[in-house]
Amino acid sequence: MKAVTNCNQSGCLAYSRTEISDVPLLSCSEAMEKLKSFREKVKGKQQFLAMYSSIFGGITTDPAAMVIPMDDHMVHRGHGVFDTTAIIDGYLYELDQHLDRFIRSASTAKINPPYDRGTIRGILIQTVSASKCRNGTLRYWLSAGPGDFDLSPSGCHKSCLYAITIQDLSPINFRGVKVVTSNVPIKPPQFATTKSVNYLPNVLSKMEAEELGAFVGIWLDSDGFVAEGPSMNVAFVTKEKELVMPLCDKILSGCTAKRVLTLAESLVREGKLCGIRMKNVSVEEGKNADEMMLLGSGIMVRSVVQWDEQIIGCGKEGPITQTLLNLVVEDMKSTLPAVGTPVPY
Amino acid sequence: MKAVTNCNQSGCLAYSRTEISDVPLLSCSEAMEKLKSFREKVKGKQQFLAMYSSIFGGITTDPAAMVIPMDDHMVHRGHGVFDTTAIIDGYLYELDQHLDRFIRSASTAKINPPYDRGTIRGILIQTVSASKCRNGTLRYWLSAGPGDFDLSPSGCHKSCLYAITIQDLSPINFRGVKVVTSNVPIKPPQFATTKSVNYLPNVLSKMEAEELGAFVGIWLDSDGFVAEGPSMNVAFVTKEKELVMPLCDKILSGCTAKRVLTLAESLVREGKLCGIRMKNVSVEEGKNADEMMLLGSGIMVRSVVQWDEQIIGCGKEGPITQTLLNLVVEDMKSTLPAVGTPVPY
Repeated sequence: MKAVTNCNQSGCLAYSRTEISDVPLLSCSEAMEKLKSFREKVKGKQQFLAMYSSIFGGITTDPAAMVIPMDDHMVHRGHGVFDTTAIIDGYLYELDQHLDRFIRSASTAKINPPYDRGTIRGILIQTVSASKCRNGTLRYWLSAGPGDFDLSPSGCHKSCLYAITIQDLSPINFRGVKVVTSNVPIKPPQFATTKSVNYLPNVLSKMEAEELGAFVGIWLDSDGFVAEGPSMNVAFVTKEKELVMPLCDKILSGCTAKRVLTLAESLVREGKLCGIRMKNVSVEEGKNADEMMLLGSGIMVRSVVQWDEQIIGCGKEGPITQTLLNLVVEDMKSTLPAVGTPVPY
Repeated sequence: MKAVTNCNQSGCLAYSRTEISDVPLLSCSEAMEKLKSFREKVKGKQQFLAMYSSIFGGITTDPAAMVIPMDDHMVHRGHGVFDTTAIIDGYLYELDQHLDRFIRSASTAKINPPYDRGTIRGILIQTVSASKCRNGTLRYWLSAGPGDFDLSPSGCHKSCLYAITIQDLSPINFRGVKVVTSNVPIKPPQFATTKSVNYLPNVLSKMEAEELGAFVGIWLDSDGFVAEGPSMNVAFVTKEKELVMPLCDKILSGCTAKRVLTLAESLVREGKLCGIRMKNVSVEEGKNADEMMLLGSGIMVRSVVQWDEQIIGCGKEGPITQTLLNLVVEDMKSTLPAVGTPVPY
């Protein structure tokens, strides 16, 4: 390689021999060795126990092989969808409900799955089985697949299925959290209601919140009503003891939120709640609520004790919220044999 | 593995031994062998000549190793940005202009690059050098990096740089095309002006157009004015021979579009154009224009001969558009030594 100096319009941006000759050329096996040592060196709070890839046509338990081709349109164009299912005591919790949403997301994103629903289901179960994970998370993706770097997926050879079994090593935290109103613009309804990998707005909203010492940002919709968190739903208990939740026409309809609405009916029967309603919720109404909560598969039911500068209720985890959390946890345990899919290990 | 049948709420979704036991378990080297044979079997219209990955800390020319970790937040959250630079006769065309935008996109996406600008620049040049490619495309990405599957990038170990040298085997086509008004919602300005991998709206707009026999969809902004194509700018020559282009406050400011605006000044001096203006363009004004064109690094300058049902001008490639295309092609050749960065092969 020749040494070159190059002065151009952006100022003199010279590069020298040392600058351009210090990147090694690697064979495929050398590159894989580097990936292996990267995986060995760097340990996070999650362990990746098994991955299925339709490119490999198999499952691997070696994190170094948990890769996706760079030209997969999910990587460089965000042309992919995902869903997540909890693994609880060796069962996949409400797998079919998540699988239904997964297939719907793929349809919205115009991805024709590489296999039928039954085959995908079988592969997901086997991925968990191979991972030997009894408590953790299964995450799975459908992508337009590899082929080229164009915008159109017409050059993609075949759509792809990927799945990973993840064990989170950090314990779930149920303490009340602070939230802030998000300044990051919310996605248009068509995209907010699809679980695609286009989560940059969600990421930036989460980062903005963390910078302000908050847990997440709360999005408002185009009319200024409360919408959702970046990967979770929001609900309130009003001063009149009504459980209210924003309408799901512009936001993702969460599986946990749906379950909580059903379980909350017992609190109406017991007289602890006067009713349950899906409606437009104004910021003022939300901030003046007795209780505020976040709902999602990762967090279950989590109390919000402060929204921006406003203390919610008495500034502590609300009693209805705590009851709903307990109901959800109990429900998951008791309904596991009915709504869970047993994994054959 | 045991055979299991499982009837649950979504109907009887049985899985049998054959269904769950036909996915092989693969070692890392077996998975890589599968990737290799996938690459050998499947050839597209693009060749991937070299890839740099900061995970490997090197460059590989083996397409089987052109992969990205599944847990990189660019893959599963779209937390990554990109840019593209043309490789022309062994020069990187306007590399620094693209590199500036790349660094700006990273900043908007809150990605702190793993290296300084000079080092990134050196790596990009060396990736092209290793590829031996003299005419093609260099595409590069900055990602939040791998770490976990959470929404927050706080668990990401380090941001990553990836770059690929691509050779497109299909010739550039300059024939006039049909466009349609896109029904896919445009991204909010903050995201439309950032070159992130969150391109699902762009992909769906392109697919919608292709289904209608058109080249691309044209997005309108929230006020109904002409905005942009899914990866290109739009411009018009009015009946009064003014070159008009939509304002760039809500859309991506394209490098090719900027260059065309500068080059078009010579046509004003020659009297072929009466002026050049950035302004809001209504659909009616656009459809009644004498000429309509698309501008982008991949397509250069391309005539639009029909928009929805409306024939543009006389339904043929417009003379000003053709002249601008010739000016751009000539400009690229003549300015290469000045604005191009020579690659030391």
